[in-house]
Amino acid sequence: MGQARGGRRRLVVIGGDAAGMSAASQARRLDPDLEIVALEKGRWTSYSACGIPYLVGGDVDSIDDLIAREPQTFRTQHNIDARILHEATSIDVDAQKVEVRDHEHGGRNYTLGYDVLHIATGATPARPPLPGIDDPLIHGVQTLEDAADLLAHAKKLEDPCHVVVVGAGYIGLEMAEAFVKRDVRTTVITRTAEPLSMFDPDMGALIGEAMRKEDIDLRTRTAAQSFERRGDKRIDVHTNNGTLTADLVILGLGVGPNSRLAIDAGIAVGERDAVKVDRQQRTSSDGVYSAGDCCESFHRLTGQHVYVALGTVANKQGRTAGTNIGGGYATFPGVIGTAVTKLCALECARTGVNEKEAREAGFEFSTVTIDSTTRAGYFPGAAPIKVKMLGEKRSGRVLGAQILGQEGAAKRIDVVATAITAGLDVEELTALDLSYAPPFSPLWDPILIAARKLAESL
Amino acid sequence: MGQARGGRRRLVVIGGDAAGMSAASQARRLDPDLEIVALEKGRWTSYSACGIPYLVGGDVDSIDDLIAREPQTFRTQHNIDARILHEATSIDVDAQKVEVRDHEHGGRNYTLGYDVLHIATGATPARPPLPGIDDPLIHGVQTLEDAADLLAHAKKLEDPCHVVVVGAGYIGLEMAEAFVKRDVRTTVITRTAEPLSMFDPDMGALIGEAMRKEDIDLRTRTAAQSFERRGDKRIDVHTNNGTLTADLVILGLGVGPNSRLAIDAGIAVGERDAVKVDRQQRTSSDGVYSAGDCCESFHRLTGQHVYVALGTVANKQGRTAGTNIGGGYATFPGVIGTAVTKLCALECARTGVNEKEAREAGFEFSTVTIDSTTRAGYFPGAAPIKVKMLGEKRSGRVLGAQILGQEGAAKRIDVVATAITAGLDVEELTALDLSYAPPFSPLWDPILIAARKLAESL
Repeated sequence: MGQARGGRRRLVVIGGDAAGMSAASQARRLDPDLEIVALEKGRWTSYSACGIPYLVGGDVDSIDDLIAREPQTFRTQHNIDARILHEATSIDVDAQKVEVRDHEHGGRNYTLGYDVLHIATGATPARPPLPGIDDPLIHGVQTLEDAADLLAHAKKLEDPCHVVVVGAGYIGLEMAEAFVKRDVRTTVITRTAEPLSMFDPDMGALIGEAMRKEDIDLRTRTAAQSFERRGDKRIDVHTNNGTLTADLVILGLGVGPNSRLAIDAGIAVGERDAVKVDRQQRTSSDGVYSAGDCCESFHRLTGQHVYVALGTVANKQGRTAGTNIGGGYATFPGVIGTAVTKLCALECARTGVNEKEAREAGFEFSTVTIDSTTRAGYFPGAAPIKVKMLGEKRSGRVLGAQILGQEGAAKRIDVVATAITAGLDVEELTALDLSYAPPFSPLWDPILIAARKLAESL
Repeated sequence: MGQARGGRRRLVVIGGDAAGMSAASQARRLDPDLEIVALEKGRWTSYSACGIPYLVGGDVDSIDDLIAREPQTFRTQHNIDARILHEATSIDVDAQKVEVRDHEHGGRNYTLGYDVLHIATGATPARPPLPGIDDPLIHGVQTLEDAADLLAHAKKLEDPCHVVVVGAGYIGLEMAEAFVKRDVRTTVITRTAEPLSMFDPDMGALIGEAMRKEDIDLRTRTAAQSFERRGDKRIDVHTNNGTLTADLVILGLGVGPNSRLAIDAGIAVGERDAVKVDRQQRTSSDGVYSAGDCCESFHRLTGQHVYVALGTVANKQGRTAGTNIGGGYATFPGVIGTAVTKLCALECARTGVNEKEAREAGFEFSTVTIDSTTRAGYFPGAAPIKVKMLGEKRSGRVLGAQILGQEGAAKRIDVVATAITAGLDVEELTALDLSYAPPFSPLWDPILIAARKLAESL
């Protein structure tokens, strides 16, 4: 430990999850001689945070199922010195050193020199500065530590009980579903007019309907104002629309980048204080890379820098950084805003820009919404699917799509994501040779039906 | 009836299924003044032939479910004079006339003049000239008439009985599944080394395994040589590998274009005697269009003319023809060889070229095959999926893919179909922003995993 750089180049990775470990693994693959130290302040490396709602809901049996690779696997199979419970406390980019606190051994501090640094510190659930927000009955959902706490708490809930989810984004909805599956009374509050505001309000309204059908008490235009503990086990959530008493509160207000270390080191940040990176995932500081939930992304369609905290992006950015660190060449081509979630039987997917985003980015566009079925209408299991699609005026380019539907609906979004990435126009989309057989699709796939209608309106 | 052209332009459509009626409907939309007569020699217009195996298997209740639109709907809602049981018997392109036999009224013949003619005569299941091939116990599967006959026959089968399917293409497999669902002993014979020869043999072998697991008696390298009736209800199928006695035989040897009318009229035919068409679906004869199973397609990837008899292609070509007939402008951009089928639990999909097709078209390429899961590995219902992918040397272009897997696997082929259409290279494919959540996909979608591995091999 300490600064002991001889002939070997040393990479220090801060953060042992997707963006950190994918970079470390990729760098190792390209450069067998590189010394690699990965610092993770928590107990776990390389896990699926996206799986936490399914752990709480009982679809997934154990926290261990969410772990992709253990620290010892990195050590023994990849020659990566993965150190859990080691927290980077500061970075000195001029001296190329990281200060580390070793929580495993009584809080011992040490200094680690680096030739290349990779910052993959992730994100933290937003905790607005409301009175009572730090109450232990209020849980964020981000790390496996969060998951362990939350699961322990959820298991202790006694009937009858009440969970309040603050925020109706992806994680808010997924956690609401998880508690509904546990037969717990669940309320979701959101300050927006409709849930899942990454979807247009007309689609959001349908998501709201589906939530209410699943016995989720959805309260829109409702913002938490303060939290007040009531005895040992309960907490009041005061809102602009009255007070809810909860046994457990989930924060689903999105996440913010863990960029404090980088900012303190003088590394440039941009959108929402996320670390600024170029196409190779290089930060403003020489020899310092960053990837994942702590850094910015580039939106291919709008040309804007955006903050997107998704596992897919973290992995791709990490891999890009690792390739460059290992001596190869790779660029991260940006995001186009694809996301998917499931609320009980309802699948919700989006890609590209929605109407609000399109207007903000300065696009003129047409929009269509069509209804179809997931299979041939006469085939057993044919279920409703609704596709909304946006196309740019004049160029005819596909700008975005939103899909709501039952089993088999959502993954169709990938066709539109591919089309947007390739810059196809709507007319080209109508001509795609997509697969058809009665158990899989109507003869005209719903994507093609939407594209046809959109083409006529452009 | 007869030739009664006044001021109105008259379109005559020969064939009342997908390619014919989609052209008629589209022409009507663009030109409300056009007189449109559609001649269909059978009893039904606009039906889903692809649904026939599911009718036989019991997934679909009634033949009526397969009918998209009735003749009277065309007459009353679209002002299209749809005439069933009217058979075009010859075309005179110089005089712009069609001879018609009206089977509805005792075989009366009449002549119909046209300004524009659209030939959409479809295809007929191949019947190799083997002794006994015309026995009524041997059924093709193409029209609803075929379906009605077959269903009536299937319902009369008495236990124990035995169905022999000759040919292991899509329709052969789907019919085999249908009879297995009816608990009928089913044998499939094919002259090829593996079933579903549109897939590479390594994938075909796995399809064969799946068939045998479903208790389908699959006999490869086995060709029918003759058929010999045994009494009232049974027939011997003599093959190079012994004799099978069947209660019912299904022909699944592919289809050939119904181009005799066109050939006799001097209209040029090409690949497999299918009617030659340009990008607007115009034939070699002025004012004569053609679409669907009776005509050729253009393969976007190989640049070759190909014969593809699929409902999706028929509909798109019909629509293209109809747009041009109606005074608009449209081109059919060609096919890329996408197809999907389901054999009980196994989903099989392909797009682009397979290894044999790639070699024949003169491509140099690399191939990879990967195994993954349809959902996050830890998520309930995660099922195996295998993706084989081909990429061109030097250019890196994606050339094709084949997918085998359980529920949720096959429709992923559409991403590759879109990528091929857009001319994406494998590196670009690895960067696609595809949707991810644990119920829908592993973090790296199987398509991306395959693309990554392929990119490394190119």
